[in-house]
Amino acid sequence: MAAAAEATEPRRRLDLSVYLVTDTRLSGPRGVAEVAAAAARGGVTIVQLRDPDATTRELIAAAGALQAVLAPHGVPLVINDRVDVALAVGADGVHLGDRDMPAATARNLLGPGRIVGVTVHDAAEAQAVDIAIADYAGIGPVFTTTTKVGARPAIGVDGFRALRRLVPLPAVGIGGIDAARTADVIAAGADGVAVVSAICAAPDPEAAARAIAAAVAEGRAR
Amino acid sequence: MAAAAEATEPRRRLDLSVYLVTDTRLSGPRGVAEVAAAAARGGVTIVQLRDPDATTRELIAAAGALQAVLAPHGVPLVINDRVDVALAVGADGVHLGDRDMPAATARNLLGPGRIVGVTVHDAAEAQAVDIAIADYAGIGPVFTTTTKVGARPAIGVDGFRALRRLVPLPAVGIGGIDAARTADVIAAGADGVAVVSAICAAPDPEAAARAIAAAVAEGRAR
Repeated sequence: MAAAAEATEPRRRLDLSVYLVTDTRLSGPRGVAEVAAAAARGGVTIVQLRDPDATTRELIAAAGALQAVLAPHGVPLVINDRVDVALAVGADGVHLGDRDMPAATARNLLGPGRIVGVTVHDAAEAQAVDIAIADYAGIGPVFTTTTKVGARPAIGVDGFRALRRLVPLPAVGIGGIDAARTADVIAAGADGVAVVSAICAAPDPEAAARAIAAAVAEGRAR
Repeated sequence: MAAAAEATEPRRRLDLSVYLVTDTRLSGPRGVAEVAAAAARGGVTIVQLRDPDATTRELIAAAGALQAVLAPHGVPLVINDRVDVALAVGADGVHLGDRDMPAATARNLLGPGRIVGVTVHDAAEAQAVDIAIADYAGIGPVFTTTTKVGARPAIGVDGFRALRRLVPLPAVGIGGIDAARTADVIAAGADGVAVVSAICAAPDPEAAARAIAAAVAEGRAR
């Protein structure tokens, strides 16, 4: 219903350059909102709240806290998996993996004005992306990651480049990416890099985000 | 928005007499849909899909399978915790505990025509129930339960009776209830009994549901 009513609303313009995926454990006692606030000062352009162990009520609280610190920077917030949490807080969108709600169902519930991101691990998934539904793809894991339980084998920069060509949408590389690896991923065709530990586990998340933003610029200049 | 648009839609009439809460593990290889189908034949009047370990995609599949077997019996389906799953499949409603979405938020997202149930463990929670938002309350645990991780201490039949008086809504007792204990809970003021293992772990879920339905009638006749 929302889709029909708002069908003329334009898709949101996305800046995926430095895409922070939150990690509650790695953020430690300072909390994800403080990490995200620092990262936004350092140049993060989009934030995904991801906490598969949190209750719904905890996710709603965390999402609200993130919105409060990101809104002054104009940085959008998307919610991993949980369309209910996105609707409850009026988040900017969701990011969906293959165990989450199908993207078409999420788009129908969220309407056209919000962000729907999808995860791509292989060529079959790349070719299955519906560009009329999804706004962007997260492609990976590019490098071996330790922050996601049950992650698949790393595809490497060459694997990323190959998959990225199959997805006619904006795309970020994800998985084990830090500032030192960012330029290679950007040069392989990424519109941005998604990072978890490189910011959440950093002693200075603002400086970490700034270093990654600089590496994105360096990769684009190659 | 939905609430405003449909404000004149009447609340659904609820029959809480025999309320099945599904348990994937206890249902075993036959699956929750087969258990629920048998239970519906035996007289279950409402079913709640509960599987805190399932992915969103698994919950959507399970909810769809339950709808297919319950619709011919006119038995409504509510989803534990997950408003997104309820919206995705068009379920009849949700059941919300204190770690789930606040009932007011869920009501706003679901509109007035769907069922919103809430859990009550103590007098403070009983008095906090908003009767303009919730349709019914699940009060308990009446007896010690082993099917819910981290369940609170049992309140007993007398504790149920006391809490039930504080909630001016239809109410079911939940927690460790089987056919032998059903009439006492009904006689203490319950509109129905919520059961998990008494049906999901039964060799014959249809016969188990029939026995509980008979015990509900017996309790009402006291």
